[in-house]
Amino acid sequence: MSERSGIVTLTTDFGHKDPYVGVMKGVILGVFPGAQIVDLCHEVAPQDVRDANFTILGSYRFFPRGTVHVVVVDPGVGSSRRILCAEAHGMIFLAPDNGVLTGIIDSASEVREVSEESLFRSGSVSNTFHGRDIFAPVAAHLGRGHDAGDVGPKVSDFCVLEHPAPVRDEGGALVGTIIHQDTFGNLITNIREEDIESLDPERRVVSFRSKEIGNLVASYSAVEPGAPLVIIDSYGFLEIALNSGNAAKHFNAVCGDAVRVG
Amino acid sequence: MSERSGIVTLTTDFGHKDPYVGVMKGVILGVFPGAQIVDLCHEVAPQDVRDANFTILGSYRFFPRGTVHVVVVDPGVGSSRRILCAEAHGMIFLAPDNGVLTGIIDSASEVREVSEESLFRSGSVSNTFHGRDIFAPVAAHLGRGHDAGDVGPKVSDFCVLEHPAPVRDEGGALVGTIIHQDTFGNLITNIREEDIESLDPERRVVSFRSKEIGNLVASYSAVEPGAPLVIIDSYGFLEIALNSGNAAKHFNAVCGDAVRVG
Amino acid sequence: MSERSGIVTLTTDFGHKDPYVGVMKGVILGVFPGAQIVDLCHEVAPQDVRDANFTILGSYRFFPRGTVHVVVVDPGVGSSRRILCAEAHGMIFLAPDNGVLTGIIDSASEVREVSEESLFRSGSVSNTFHGRDIFAPVAAHLGRGHDAGDVGPKVSDFCVLEHPAPVRDEGGALVGTIIHQDTFGNLITNIREEDIESLDPERRVVSFRSKEIGNLVASYSAVEPGAPLVIIDSYGFLEIALNSGNAAKHFNAVCGDAVRVG
Repeated sequence: MSERSGIVTLTTDFGHKDPYVGVMKGVILGVFPGAQIVDLCHEVAPQDVRDANFTILGSYRFFPRGTVHVVVVDPGVGSSRRILCAEAHGMIFLAPDNGVLTGIIDSASEVREVSEESLFRSGSVSNTFHGRDIFAPVAAHLGRGHDAGDVGPKVSDFCVLEHPAPVRDEGGALVGTIIHQDTFGNLITNIREEDIESLDPERRVVSFRSKEIGNLVASYSAVEPGAPLVIIDSYGFLEIALNSGNAAKHFNAVCGDAVRVG
Repeated sequence: MSERSGIVTLTTDFGHKDPYVGVMKGVILGVFPGAQIVDLCHEVAPQDVRDANFTILGSYRFFPRGTVHVVVVDPGVGSSRRILCAEAHGMIFLAPDNGVLTGIIDSASEVREVSEESLFRSGSVSNTFHGRDIFAPVAAHLGRGHDAGDVGPKVSDFCVLEHPAPVRDEGGALVGTIIHQDTFGNLITNIREEDIESLDPERRVVSFRSKEIGNLVASYSAVEPGAPLVIIDSYGFLEIALNSGNAAKHFNAVCGDAVRVG
Repeated sequence: MSERSGIVTLTTDFGHKDPYVGVMKGVILGVFPGAQIVDLCHEVAPQDVRDANFTILGSYRFFPRGTVHVVVVDPGVGSSRRILCAEAHGMIFLAPDNGVLTGIIDSASEVREVSEESLFRSGSVSNTFHGRDIFAPVAAHLGRGHDAGDVGPKVSDFCVLEHPAPVRDEGGALVGTIIHQDTFGNLITNIREEDIESLDPERRVVSFRSKEIGNLVASYSAVEPGAPLVIIDSYGFLEIALNSGNAAKHFNAVCGDAVRVG
């Protein structure tokens, strides 16, 4: 892969209260003045690798080939944890080796450990802010065309998260869990459209908290305003929602809650 | 209108917790790599068309001609509600047909329904995220110069919100309402400077909660720190504020509260 | 200084609920279409000049020379307070004369009062939103290469904040204070690495709330998850943190709390 889109995306748990993201952009633009920097998300739950993985996994494919995706959700910053550079799907991913790239790195054509210090920020590298001192400058060099083969040696082992899949109970029903609540209070589960299609058509009825919600509908407006519904969301997962309302508040739901189909 | 500024603005209720805005930018840059994308606001109150209308109406005119403004506050996503493309004030506006363009679309030189599927994201269009699958790619095509006349057929009817205007009470006083609270707790009303100028000079005294605040002042610092004041704000509306303080908290005020002049 | 990086950074207390920042960008791009605008921080505590100073002081040096930094935390907007343009460290700083540039303006090669109205937004200048009507257009003109010597007359006096330095108590211990809590709940003090190095090596033990935390460590992971630690942060200050936790919540700490070394 030699062509680049010039785009660098940033996914962090830095929030918006501090200038940490802005400072990373300063470092990137110092190396690569023409960079198109896109904020993917900076409100990943603090140090929550699973939440960060959900974010990048659902998003990367909507960017052009040659994009550099940077994920800095990094509870192990300053420890011996490695920083990885993975080439996958015609893009480059930079992230700590903590499982945050699960589902992407598994199909990478090449994974390297980032160790080439000439690509780091000149001057000293802090032990507390590798986003600024390592991720940003390395991403900038890669974004402007630097060969990903130069960042460090190839590695073949790396951390991968276990994603609990939906299971069948003794009666043949599919039981999944809520894995994310979005801004609107939509409850996103780990059940995929194809999981549902594997059930008999008459068993595709979704229940939550022992109450039946119903069959999949095609749009939020298929039910009355304020009523619950189930739909395949824009990530391709089964989602419990309320038409013009907030399902998380309505059901007082939390991540990990079980959802049943059949 | 053929010239474009290359700017695409985004106004949504997507918040900052999810990558929805970032994903829209990925799609835009895939179609129009040189786009200058500006976040106008992503914290519109969820599905609040009136709040979104306040945001775009007060902001669009500060952008150069040829800008494409995209508003995705869209409780009807996936239903039969139309998506509109309006040319007005030398700019292009893309939004659902739900009244969010009230005050702009009324003076549009041309309004079309967006139906030309070749401008949509290739692959399938979801029923839950038209921001990504329709608004983003269409905005990108328009932003890079595509003729707005090609997005679909002209329409002449569209949804417009009723904006309650200030009224005169039996004693001749002007009674308006609070329509927005900003970040600083400033209370923005629907009373315009010209409404006040229509009153006798000696009747231009503003009261709130039956207590007199006073006449219009020229700057926040015209009163003591912590004291209330009334001023014409940067939108051109009468605003109740506190010098170096938060009027919304001070008065425990909410949108819809009455404000009296005279 | 004639070369420019094309970068304009924005630091404000405008938050993300209103389109104020987006509107400033519209004005900037109207004057300087090629601007690279970077959000440094928009969640400075409302009208908190000290917090804004902490933000810009810790961040500016990570941007390329020729960058224009704009700080609009401006409780005196519309009053007679001046707007300053300072050239320092090969960059340009635009801010109200309220101390927000303390630590930068002191070493400026030149400081001018911004008074040249031909650089302001054409049309009327509001008394409530100089960010839009003065800061944005002046920054854009400067960012695209306009000579900073033209913005107005030189000034030699300006507001500077007093930064209380750590003190030695009667027993020779160093006593500093917490000056900032970041997103992660890290407690940043006004004690610098060199302050600690001025102590005898055996006296470099940090205490908070009369309990000993320990010596400086090299990384968060030097202690058990959930345990407190002290570290030199990415700003160069002593920071009290929790490995994989939130020190501010753990200690129920607030800015101004004393921290003791020795």
